[in-house]
Amino acid sequence: MIDFRTHPDRYRHWKLSVDGEVATLLMDVDPAGGLFDGYELKMNSYDLGVDIELYDAVQRLRFEHPEVRAVVMTSAKEKIFCSGANIRMLGKSSHGHKVNFCKFTNETRLSIEDATEFSRQTYLCAVNGTAAGGGYELALATDYILMADDGNTSVSLPEVPLLAVLPGTGGLTRVTDKRKVRRDRADIFSATEEGVRGKRAVEWRLVDEVVPLSRFRDTVAQRARELAARSDRPADAKGVALTPLARTIDGDRIAYRHLTITIDREVRAANFLIKATDEAAPADAAGIHAQGDVFWPLALARELDDAILHLRLNEPTVTSWIFRTEGSLDRVAEYDALLQATQSDWLGREILLYWKRTLKRLDTTSRSLFALIEPGSCFAGFLFEIALAADRSFMLDGRREGDNRAPAAVRLTALNFDGLPMGNGLSRLATRFLGEPESVEAARGRIGQDLEAADAGDGGLVTATPDDIDWDDELRLVLEERASFSVDALTGMEANLRFAGPETMETKIFGRLTAWQNWIFQRPNAVGEAGALKLYGSGKRAEYNVERV
Amino acid sequence: MIDFRTHPDRYRHWKLSVDGEVATLLMDVDPAGGLFDGYELKMNSYDLGVDIELYDAVQRLRFEHPEVRAVVMTSAKEKIFCSGANIRMLGKSSHGHKVNFCKFTNETRLSIEDATEFSRQTYLCAVNGTAAGGGYELALATDYILMADDGNTSVSLPEVPLLAVLPGTGGLTRVTDKRKVRRDRADIFSATEEGVRGKRAVEWRLVDEVVPLSRFRDTVAQRARELAARSDRPADAKGVALTPLARTIDGDRIAYRHLTITIDREVRAANFLIKATDEAAPADAAGIHAQGDVFWPLALARELDDAILHLRLNEPTVTSWIFRTEGSLDRVAEYDALLQATQSDWLGREILLYWKRTLKRLDTTSRSLFALIEPGSCFAGFLFEIALAADRSFMLDGRREGDNRAPAAVRLTALNFDGLPMGNGLSRLATRFLGEPESVEAARGRIGQDLEAADAGDGGLVTATPDDIDWDDELRLVLEERASFSVDALTGMEANLRFAGPETMETKIFGRLTAWQNWIFQRPNAVGEAGALKLYGSGKRAEYNVERV
Repeated sequence: MIDFRTHPDRYRHWKLSVDGEVATLLMDVDPAGGLFDGYELKMNSYDLGVDIELYDAVQRLRFEHPEVRAVVMTSAKEKIFCSGANIRMLGKSSHGHKVNFCKFTNETRLSIEDATEFSRQTYLCAVNGTAAGGGYELALATDYILMADDGNTSVSLPEVPLLAVLPGTGGLTRVTDKRKVRRDRADIFSATEEGVRGKRAVEWRLVDEVVPLSRFRDTVAQRARELAARSDRPADAKGVALTPLARTIDGDRIAYRHLTITIDREVRAANFLIKATDEAAPADAAGIHAQGDVFWPLALARELDDAILHLRLNEPTVTSWIFRTEGSLDRVAEYDALLQATQSDWLGREILLYWKRTLKRLDTTSRSLFALIEPGSCFAGFLFEIALAADRSFMLDGRREGDNRAPAAVRLTALNFDGLPMGNGLSRLATRFLGEPESVEAARGRIGQDLEAADAGDGGLVTATPDDIDWDDELRLVLEERASFSVDALTGMEANLRFAGPETMETKIFGRLTAWQNWIFQRPNAVGEAGALKLYGSGKRAEYNVERV
Repeated sequence: MIDFRTHPDRYRHWKLSVDGEVATLLMDVDPAGGLFDGYELKMNSYDLGVDIELYDAVQRLRFEHPEVRAVVMTSAKEKIFCSGANIRMLGKSSHGHKVNFCKFTNETRLSIEDATEFSRQTYLCAVNGTAAGGGYELALATDYILMADDGNTSVSLPEVPLLAVLPGTGGLTRVTDKRKVRRDRADIFSATEEGVRGKRAVEWRLVDEVVPLSRFRDTVAQRARELAARSDRPADAKGVALTPLARTIDGDRIAYRHLTITIDREVRAANFLIKATDEAAPADAAGIHAQGDVFWPLALARELDDAILHLRLNEPTVTSWIFRTEGSLDRVAEYDALLQATQSDWLGREILLYWKRTLKRLDTTSRSLFALIEPGSCFAGFLFEIALAADRSFMLDGRREGDNRAPAAVRLTALNFDGLPMGNGLSRLATRFLGEPESVEAARGRIGQDLEAADAGDGGLVTATPDDIDWDDELRLVLEERASFSVDALTGMEANLRFAGPETMETKIFGRLTAWQNWIFQRPNAVGEAGALKLYGSGKRAEYNVERV
C-alpha cells in the first residue's frame, strides 16, 4: 500500500530549509530509498516516493510558512541536478502505475505553479548540474530557471531518443506553451540526448539565465530576493502546522474524522460520506488561525485529498466513486461565507486554493463520479462543487418513507461562480452550461436559496431527481451498468466529456500530452520485450517496428 | 494499394444529385462493396472506401457546383440512416489502419464544416432512421440536424457500452463543444446503447428539430432552402470539372504533373519535389475560370492532397517526408498575388481554402516533415507555408560549388499571415513566434522581399542555414538520426510540438480525442482476444480487466 502521508522529519530525498522569506528545497535522493524493490534511485532520479515528499513540502510551505515568498529548488548532488524519473522503475512498473505516477507528478508540478501564481510563493530553479527529462521538467514548473555555466550543466529532454517515450511531466507542453520555444528548436531539443547548455539555452528560451559558477550562488540568492519582493505574503504571520492526518483502514472501511469511505466490492464502488461539522464557524480570519488545521474546511480538504490519492493508487478496481454529504446546509453555508470573507487573509486564501486543487484532482481522476443528494445532506457552495464535478448527480425528490427530515435541498453560493475554477479556466457551472450562459445567470440569481429537487432539476443543476420509490432501483441500475463497461473506454469518455470549452496549458497536459504518453506506454517500441524502456541499461539496443501509425 | 481517386460515375455507396441550389448526398452503401474482404457493409455501415467517395463528393460539390448553396445528407435505406463504422472491419484491421481510417474520416467531417462555414455550402442532415455511432457523428458534422419523429429513429453513440472504444470521429468533442450538450446528459447519452429519440433529443441539443414523418420531406426541403438563402455563392456561374488526376507509380517514384516523389528506402524518406509552372499566371479570376483544374495552384493542391493520402496509407514505413521546390520565386509570387486578388470570386476562394485544408493535412500527418530550401527553389507565399509546416527547415547559405544559380531566397506574402490558418486558428508564423509576436511583425515588414539564408535565419523563418560544405552531412545526420528513433515516440512528440497556443474543437479532435482513442485501440479490453471489438457479432460476451488506469 502506498501512503501519501509524510512529514519533513521523515523525508529521505529532500531537505527543506527556510531562511526568512526564502526557502530552499534541496533534492538529495537516497538511492536506497525507492518505494519498491528492484531499482536504485541513482543520480537524483525519482520515483513516486520522492514525489510524495515533494508534494508534502510544497503543501507545508504554503500553510506552515506564511513568511516564505520565494522557494529555490536545487540539488545537493555533485554535477547532477536531477536525472528525471527512474527508468528501471518505469521499465518494471505496470501500465497503471506508470500512468498514475505521471498523473501525480503532473499535479505536483501544477501545484508548484499554483503556489507561484496564487499563493505568491514564487518557485525558482537553480540548475546546478545536468537536468535531464523529468529533471528539466521540474525546472520548467518553476517561474525562473537559472543554469550554471560550467561547461557541464545542461538541460535536456532525452526521452524520445533514449527511451522511446515522451517527457511525461508536461515537458513538451511547457516548452511550447509556457516558455514558447520555437517549434523547430523544440524539435531539435527534444531529439537531442545531450541537451542544450550555455547561452544557446537562453537564446532558445529553455532557461532564463546562465551564470558562471563563481557567481552562481549569489545570483540565485539575489533573484530569489527579487522575486520575493513581489509577494504579498505577510512577514510576521504565524504558520499553521499540518499535523498528522488520522486515518483508519478497517477492511473495506476507510475512516477520517469528517470523511468515511465504504467500499462496495460487488458494484466496485466507493461510497464517500462527508460530514459537516456541528460547530459554528469562527467569526473571522483570526478565528481560523486560532483553529489551525482543525478548522473544518481545511481538515476536510486534507482528508479528501488523501482519500483521492489513496483510492487512485491502492484501489484500482474500485471504479465508481459515490459522494454523499451529511449535515446542516446552513452550517456549510456559514463556513463558505467565511472563506469568501477571508480571501484577503493569507490563510483563508490558502484554504480556498487547496479546495480548488482538490476539486481539480477529482476532475482528472479516472473513476466514474456520482453525487447523491438526499434528505439530511448539505451540498452548499464549495461542497456543491463535488456534485458539479460528478459525471452524474441524483437528487431525491420529496421525503423518504419513514424519514421525517425535510426534502433534500442544495444551496449555491458565490464560490460556485468564482474562486474554484476547473483546469480549463471556467467554473464548473460555466462549463456545464456552455450552451446556455443564461442558465449560469439564472443560477446566480438564486444564490443563497434552498433549492429542492424540482428547482434544482429545472435549473439544470442536477442530472436526475428520482423519488423515493424509484431511487434505489435507479441507482443500482446506473452502478451495475457502469460496472459492466470497459474501464478504459470510460476513462477516455470521461476525459473528453469533462472538459468542454477552452483548453489551457493544464488541460493540454492532462488531455493531449498524457493521452499520447499513455498510448506510447502501450506500444511495443517502448514497453515490448525489445522496447527501449525495457532494455534501458541492459547494454542491448532496442528493436523498433518502423511503421508509422 | 488504396487509391483515393474516384468519381461519381464510379461511386458504389453514395448518390450525388443536384437540384438547383440544393444538392442531396444519398447514402446507400453497397454491402458487397467493402475495400477489403472479410466483412459486409450492412445497414449503411462504412469503411474507408465509403469515406473516400464522401470526400470526393464534398470536393466536387465545392468546385463543380458553384450554384449549390445547401447540401442535404440523408439515407436511401429503410429505417436506417447510418450505423457507423463497420465493426467487423475495425475488428480485423491493424492498429495502423484503424488510426489512419479515423484520421481521414475526421478530416472529411472537418471538410464538411469548412464547406459550410467558408464555401457557404451549408450541410444539413435529414436523419431518416437510426443514426448510430459514426452515423450520428456524420450528422454532427452538419450544421442542422433534422430527425424523423417516427418512434424508431434515434441518434446514439453506442461505442462505449457496445464496443469498449470511443466514438472516433469527433463525436464526444462535437457533443460537448459544438452542440454544447450538458456534460451529465452527454454522459448518459454516450452510455446508452439505444440512444435518444424524439423531443428529448431536441431538449438535450442532440438534434435541432424532430419532425413527424408526414412532414419530414417537406420540412427538410424548406430548411435547405432557408439555409441556401444565406449563401453568397453565385447562381449563374459555371463549375470547374475536377478531371482525373494523372499519376504514375514506377518503383519508388511517384509522378504527377507538378509533383514528383522519390522514396529513399535506406533512410525511409520520401523526397517531394514541387515544380512551379513556367507559364505566367492569368490576369484575373476570369483567367482562372478559363484554365479550370489545369490552373497551377489548383492542380498542385490536388496532387499534393493525393500524395499525402497515398503515402500515409500505402507507405507506413516511409517515416520522413522531405519537401523541395523548383522554379521561379517571381512566378510563384505572381500566382500567390492572384489568389489574394480573387478572394471575392467563388473559385479563387475555393482554391485558397483547398490549400488551407491540404496544409492542415500536413500538420496532422504522423511523419517527420523537413523542408530543404536550395538554389533554384521557389518557397514564396503559400508554398512557403510548407516550410513553416515542417518540423525543421534547412536553407542553403550561399552558392553550391559548380552551380552558378543565385543563392536560395524565400519570399513572404500576405498569405503567410492571413488566409492559411492552422487548426489552432493561428497562422503558422504566429504559432511559430508565440513567444515573440514582434518577430511576426518584423516578418510582415519584409513581405515581398527576397530573403536569403542570413536574413531568413536571423528572422527565425528557417531552422538552420548550413553552407555547401556542411549541407549534405548535416542532412544525412538528421535523417539517419530520425530513422533511428521510435516512430511512436516521434508521433507523440510531433503531435505535441506542432500545436502550440490555443486549442480549438479541431485540435481537440486530433489531440485529446484521437490520442485517447488510439490508446483504447491498444487496450486488451477493446482489441484483445476477449475484447469487445474482437468479439462483436460472435455472440460471445467480452471479458474486461476491471483495473482503472
